Amino acid sequence: MSEFVGFSPPSSRRRPGTTGSYERRTGWLLDCAAVAFLAVYAVPILHPDLSPVWLRACEVASWAVWALFGADYFIRLSLAEDRRRFVRGNLVDVAVIVLPLLRPMRLVRLLPVLARMQHAGMSLRGRATTYVVAGAVLLGFVASLAVLDAERGSPEANITSFGDALWWAAATVTTVGYGDRFPTTGEGRIVGVALMLGGIALVGTVTAALASWFVEQQRKEASK
Amino acid sequence: MSEFVGFSPPSSRRRPGTTGSYERRTGWLLDCAAVAFLAVYAVPILHPDLSPVWLRACEVASWAVWALFGADYFIRLSLAEDRRRFVRGNLVDVAVIVLPLLRPMRLVRLLPVLARMQHAGMSLRGRATTYVVAGAVLLGFVASLAVLDAERGSPEANITSFGDALWWAAATVTTVGYGDRFPTTGEGRIVGVALMLGGIALVGTVTAALASWFVEQQRKEASK
Amino acid sequence: MSEFVGFSPPSSRRRPGTTGSYERRTGWLLDCAAVAFLAVYAVPILHPDLSPVWLRACEVASWAVWALFGADYFIRLSLAEDRRRFVRGNLVDVAVIVLPLLRPMRLVRLLPVLARMQHAGMSLRGRATTYVVAGAVLLGFVASLAVLDAERGSPEANITSFGDALWWAAATVTTVGYGDRFPTTGEGRIVGVALMLGGIALVGTVTAALASWFVEQQRKEASK
Amino acid sequence: MSEFVGFSPPSSRRRPGTTGSYERRTGWLLDCAAVAFLAVYAVPILHPDLSPVWLRACEVASWAVWALFGADYFIRLSLAEDRRRFVRGNLVDVAVIVLPLLRPMRLVRLLPVLARMQHAGMSLRGRATTYVVAGAVLLGFVASLAVLDAERGSPEANITSFGDALWWAAATVTTVGYGDRFPTTGEGRIVGVALMLGGIALVGTVTAALASWFVEQQRKEASK
Repeated sequence: MSEFVGFSPPSSRRRPGTTGSYERRTGWLLDCAAVAFLAVYAVPILHPDLSPVWLRACEVASWAVWALFGADYFIRLSLAEDRRRFVRGNLVDVAVIVLPLLRPMRLVRLLPVLARMQHAGMSLRGRATTYVVAGAVLLGFVASLAVLDAERGSPEANITSFGDALWWAAATVTTVGYGDRFPTTGEGRIVGVALMLGGIALVGTVTAALASWFVEQQRKEASK
Repeated sequence: MSEFVGFSPPSSRRRPGTTGSYERRTGWLLDCAAVAFLAVYAVPILHPDLSPVWLRACEVASWAVWALFGADYFIRLSLAEDRRRFVRGNLVDVAVIVLPLLRPMRLVRLLPVLARMQHAGMSLRGRATTYVVAGAVLLGFVASLAVLDAERGSPEANITSFGDALWWAAATVTTVGYGDRFPTTGEGRIVGVALMLGGIALVGTVTAALASWFVEQQRKEASK
Repeated sequence: MSEFVGFSPPSSRRRPGTTGSYERRTGWLLDCAAVAFLAVYAVPILHPDLSPVWLRACEVASWAVWALFGADYFIRLSLAEDRRRFVRGNLVDVAVIVLPLLRPMRLVRLLPVLARMQHAGMSLRGRATTYVVAGAVLLGFVASLAVLDAERGSPEANITSFGDALWWAAATVTTVGYGDRFPTTGEGRIVGVALMLGGIALVGTVTAALASWFVEQQRKEASK
Repeated sequence: MSEFVGFSPPSSRRRPGTTGSYERRTGWLLDCAAVAFLAVYAVPILHPDLSPVWLRACEVASWAVWALFGADYFIRLSLAEDRRRFVRGNLVDVAVIVLPLLRPMRLVRLLPVLARMQHAGMSLRGRATTYVVAGAVLLGFVASLAVLDAERGSPEANITSFGDALWWAAATVTTVGYGDRFPTTGEGRIVGVALMLGGIALVGTVTAALASWFVEQQRKEASK
């Protein structure tokens, strides 16, 4: 799979250099934690006028998930046969745990959940397409939350509601880019660049899957 | 055909789980109804200052087509050998009948008309390309009507004529996206997202068809 | 070649249903006329404050080329073996001659000149790529002239110089679409839509040519 | 390699018509000079309020690199077996040396550095993808510097900081094109067009690499 540089398709859950037994038993817990993190990340952004008790609860839950991800990382590290290889193969996990700015990036933990939602009988092309499309929808949703969070504090912001943020994300991830709404803060622009790259992945994968499908049908017709 | 996930090419008229005889006899009626629906949908939007009698006539005709589509659905359901499979294979039809907001979506009924306009001898690539290009033109036209309908009531709208709406639709479906005109209402933005997705399909299919054509020619040259 | 629907690659000069001898002898004259037409079309747009004598000369030359194209059409029609087939295969030529609005479209006559500029030894992919890239550059140049001509008379126009027009054309044909400059008149918007379609052709052909090249190299490596 | 018109993939360092020995010995020096040129080009743009001594040092270093590139060109010319072929095969080098406006273009000398950073075992597709992606990042960075340099003097410029310039470059190279920031000067627009073309190369190569990967996997599955 990794022979294609820069594109890591949905493969099995196993990561480089770990024993499978621990992961099999804790996989569902980490998936639930990732989904829960999406909830406690989204709620305070969508409802900033929530009672302080609930906001505090979301914050605590967010830190709990962080602690869980951290603990999971160190347990997997200690179980790894080849620790150097494990560290090299899980750099994203470290970045996500260490950098507080990358908080929304903790949701990359949802990607394996997407990957496991696919049917076993699908072709590589089908799996890659569903994965990228689902990933683009998830990315668009998370980016809408992140950009709204980033822009809310800025006086000259033009993305001021979640509807605006979703509309901006849709125009960006499809590379249309109207420019009626756009981030003005540094954090918002970083989110925007991530979404543009996701857009290239989306457009590229859809086009490539169609092309390979046409080529396949053609070959079948030619070999008849 | 359905082996390609998320892309349903123009195939035969038969839908999953129905007998072909009923459909063969009523196909032309439903096609006419779909074309008529396009007319009675378009006229009141393009001529809002029409006399009340005509506006009322369009509304009645619109409901008549709706009743026809509903009746057609239930007749096909009662004729289906495997009803569960029929329901699963025709979810769009139910959504179109039940949801009043999706009124312009009833025009998906025009897609089989497009599909049958194709020549029998064409390759899959040729059929997919003509289908997607014709579909994109139809989508652009319907989206122009829908967005004009949605934006007309908004005081801060900038799409105020059918010319503006067509221009906006062209810039969106080609993923150019100037942003000199853009929808400001929720309904208008939903139409916009549909058009962006149509744009990815258009660009992707044209590119993929060209790629598969180049690959085919190359193989022919190589095998000489 | 025509098996690919909607894409007519640079083939030989011969058009459907004509004898080659007349075309071989007059080809250079018509090519010169097309180049001359580009000049007399461009000069009055780029220099609107030219002396009336020169403007008049350009107009006369423009009509002369038109008459030449018309005469050429009727001579080729009379020489054609199968006249019905000739008419059907040269519909663009008629449209260009008959419709005065399509005056810039007369420059499609430059496309065969581009096609003949290619080396004989090139592959289909190479020929299609150079043809589309050269065609996109020509289209961008002509569209810049046409949009400047159309917008000049409009009081709310924002494309007011040839530099603006070129910049707008570049942003459109690459599907970037900033929207800092955009046509506001009906004619200008029609030119814009033509340029957007040219942009899809450009992006699609470049991508498809790269894809087919990768596939070819891969097959060579695999068959080693 | 050169059979693909208009796309020159990362190949060996050797240029047409030169002896390899000189280049092998001086390659590292010219690479260092290209990296140094990037530094002395970037610093005065990013820090315009630098002390005059440093600005002067950067200017001197810039001219030194220019002299080095010029000397390298003439030495290679004198060593070339076929001088006519050498001149034809190195036209970009002359343009870069002769034209002062193309100063940022001297950084094309960094492209061979990128090309040599690749692993030997990679496939053509992998090499082309990493090369184009790295090239797009470099192009985006240099274009941000160049556009900031060009726009700084213009009173109606809207790109006034390096952050703005990077944001504009990202939106352009991914063909999103919001239009919230855009160049207004002639030089800035030329930089913009270069970036748009880079964007087509980026999107096209990513898509084409994905397509060829899908086709390859499919063929492997089919031949099982």
